[in-house]
Amino acid sequence: MSNPEWRSVGNGHLEGPIPIPDLDPSKLTITLSESLKPIPEPESLIFGGTMSDHMLVASFDPVTGWSAPEIKPYGPFTLDPASSCFQYATNIFEGMKAYVGPDGTPRLFRPDKNMTRLARSAERVALPPFNSDALLELIKKLVVVDKKWIPNLEGHSLYMRPTIIGTRASLGVTASDHALLYVILSPTGPYFRTGPKPISLLATTQNVRAWPGGTGSHKLAGNYTSGFSPQRKAAKQGYDQLLWLLKDESGWKVTEAGAMNVFVVVGRDDGDIDLVTPPLDGTILPGVTRDSILAITNAHTAGKLTLPGIPPTKRIHTHERPFTIADMDRWLEQDKLQEMFAVGTAAVVAPVGRVGFQDEDDSKIRDLLLPSYEGGMGPVSWAVRKMIVDIQEGRFEWEGWSVRCE
Amino acid sequence: MSNPEWRSVGNGHLEGPIPIPDLDPSKLTITLSESLKPIPEPESLIFGGTMSDHMLVASFDPVTGWSAPEIKPYGPFTLDPASSCFQYATNIFEGMKAYVGPDGTPRLFRPDKNMTRLARSAERVALPPFNSDALLELIKKLVVVDKKWIPNLEGHSLYMRPTIIGTRASLGVTASDHALLYVILSPTGPYFRTGPKPISLLATTQNVRAWPGGTGSHKLAGNYTSGFSPQRKAAKQGYDQLLWLLKDESGWKVTEAGAMNVFVVVGRDDGDIDLVTPPLDGTILPGVTRDSILAITNAHTAGKLTLPGIPPTKRIHTHERPFTIADMDRWLEQDKLQEMFAVGTAAVVAPVGRVGFQDEDDSKIRDLLLPSYEGGMGPVSWAVRKMIVDIQEGRFEWEGWSVRCE
Repeated sequence: MSNPEWRSVGNGHLEGPIPIPDLDPSKLTITLSESLKPIPEPESLIFGGTMSDHMLVASFDPVTGWSAPEIKPYGPFTLDPASSCFQYATNIFEGMKAYVGPDGTPRLFRPDKNMTRLARSAERVALPPFNSDALLELIKKLVVVDKKWIPNLEGHSLYMRPTIIGTRASLGVTASDHALLYVILSPTGPYFRTGPKPISLLATTQNVRAWPGGTGSHKLAGNYTSGFSPQRKAAKQGYDQLLWLLKDESGWKVTEAGAMNVFVVVGRDDGDIDLVTPPLDGTILPGVTRDSILAITNAHTAGKLTLPGIPPTKRIHTHERPFTIADMDRWLEQDKLQEMFAVGTAAVVAPVGRVGFQDEDDSKIRDLLLPSYEGGMGPVSWAVRKMIVDIQEGRFEWEGWSVRCE
Repeated sequence: MSNPEWRSVGNGHLEGPIPIPDLDPSKLTITLSESLKPIPEPESLIFGGTMSDHMLVASFDPVTGWSAPEIKPYGPFTLDPASSCFQYATNIFEGMKAYVGPDGTPRLFRPDKNMTRLARSAERVALPPFNSDALLELIKKLVVVDKKWIPNLEGHSLYMRPTIIGTRASLGVTASDHALLYVILSPTGPYFRTGPKPISLLATTQNVRAWPGGTGSHKLAGNYTSGFSPQRKAAKQGYDQLLWLLKDESGWKVTEAGAMNVFVVVGRDDGDIDLVTPPLDGTILPGVTRDSILAITNAHTAGKLTLPGIPPTKRIHTHERPFTIADMDRWLEQDKLQEMFAVGTAAVVAPVGRVGFQDEDDSKIRDLLLPSYEGGMGPVSWAVRKMIVDIQEGRFEWEGWSVRCE
């Protein structure tokens, strides 16, 4: 029933019951496509709809370990209908982006965070382990091969989707001991083409994204499935995305917005501001953008950098703590709720203008209206977005976050 | 963002924004395999490991609707790496079985229940709807084509796996507007080859299968993923399966065992017995075997049938209500907990001999030991299993549950 277990120790072999090959960049083969696709105009890009010319692929077999990785023309996979990826959703992924810096070199943003999270996701669903440094090295090589697919325009990037799927071809309800690891690339434009526009969220009390003891803090394909039907209903009611809640004795806690982490900016009596985001209690995805925003805001308050448009003397106190819809109501009543925004790799920062909430025993949705700002974004939303994008695109160097692919 | 929505009304077209073709058995094409596989000896069968010669396939496109269904040689699918089934686990399935009756005719067991549940699952994950009567008709035709794959031995059957996967080839986080529906068949032997042997369950307080507002009452591929890693840990500690719990103010409620529903038999002061199973509150899969056991037990108590080995005067009171680990402790102390068993299509009935439980603040697992019986099964477990199998295999006619494929 239980597969043998291995551990990646970075010496080229997985340690386990029998030593088998780990993911090894020195074995990489590159086969270039003979029919390169036309690269679409940046203005015509729809998120995730266009794929680049090449992909990275490696497969895992419990007897022979990780295969020699390949960069080869983008193309379909051939899989048995009984495969674990179809039957038991043993599928995990990461969202990352490659940028072109002012020096023309492709850059990644804190890619080690994505590699660590992918390794954690693999462990959570009992997929085979892999050397995550090796995977990062291979991803850099793929980015160099498809470098011309990175749109060289501010706010544009090459979205990257490292994915691992279980390929065990049997209906037995057990972990997949076979896997396919692949990375595909999709050029993408800014989330808001015509400047930021606050999004609307419909808070759902009927559907729950994640719960204590669940898988919400890992990046599993199956975490996204439950949102599609409620998202469709929210769209029909005129909302852009869902606001996910989780009820406990404190009330309806805010957890995530669509597939993004969420922040609120709350004014304080002493003139400073609080920046609050739900804590990583196991129900929240530990987002790279979330972590980066906490870090640069703390750096601003510590005087290590200055967020654009925010006076160095303006202190922003970050808090990873729960807050509820009732807290938001109260802050709005007290005129303290200054901004709300959702964050993630795809959108970077999306300002929230409106939150619809319908209590269980109430048939009517009431809207919580956030303050509006000229240009669509509040000062903190704008500042953190600008700073993150400047670091991502290599215009501002910070803590080695922007990693060159050479 | 939101796909157009259709509704299957059984007239050959899906009703929606534009009428498009529904799943239509009259359009079926059959292509027989030119190289039939050897049929393994029944004794050598491992659950889900061997597939029959043919499969049923139909695909959905939002412009052209459901394709003409095909029965064709079992073989792999070719899918884009960006497909929704890999990225967002838009995958649902059913578990059913075909049996050979004494008259040599293949039979299905309450297949309408599986069709209804598959349609519910599709709706839950925003996959396209389909005419479920049409699908059943097509499944019957597939069973007739691969009839020789049904092992003609008591307790053996041809396990069937209707599956729908999302095939939208784009990374946008939204419902899949393309789909592939398929049915594959796998011959299977009895769960217990050498007679029933009570299984052991490790109750987990760290991992939670389903939550109010989650997807636990639907048959989604993603519902199974979270169990693989804890199942591996349970196996290492010497337990066969997990016992899933859900904590609320009443304590640690028992929900499911592995991928099965669960029952307990509790003695009453008046000499009757209570048969208790958790209620369908949204966290429990509405199992066909679960429903059938409740129905035949109620029929026994109402004098409409007699369960084998149970005196007609012995009243079994069925209850769909929560029970906790503390309830089990108390019943054991009072010598009232007579039997526990897990039920599902694959195993039919699996008696439970031992439940390991480790409270959150307790480092040691303590075992709750269920009474043991000669032959491995208590009288109620044995009786309901025997009755269900007799109905499935056509030896006992009951309420039209056994449906012939002709």
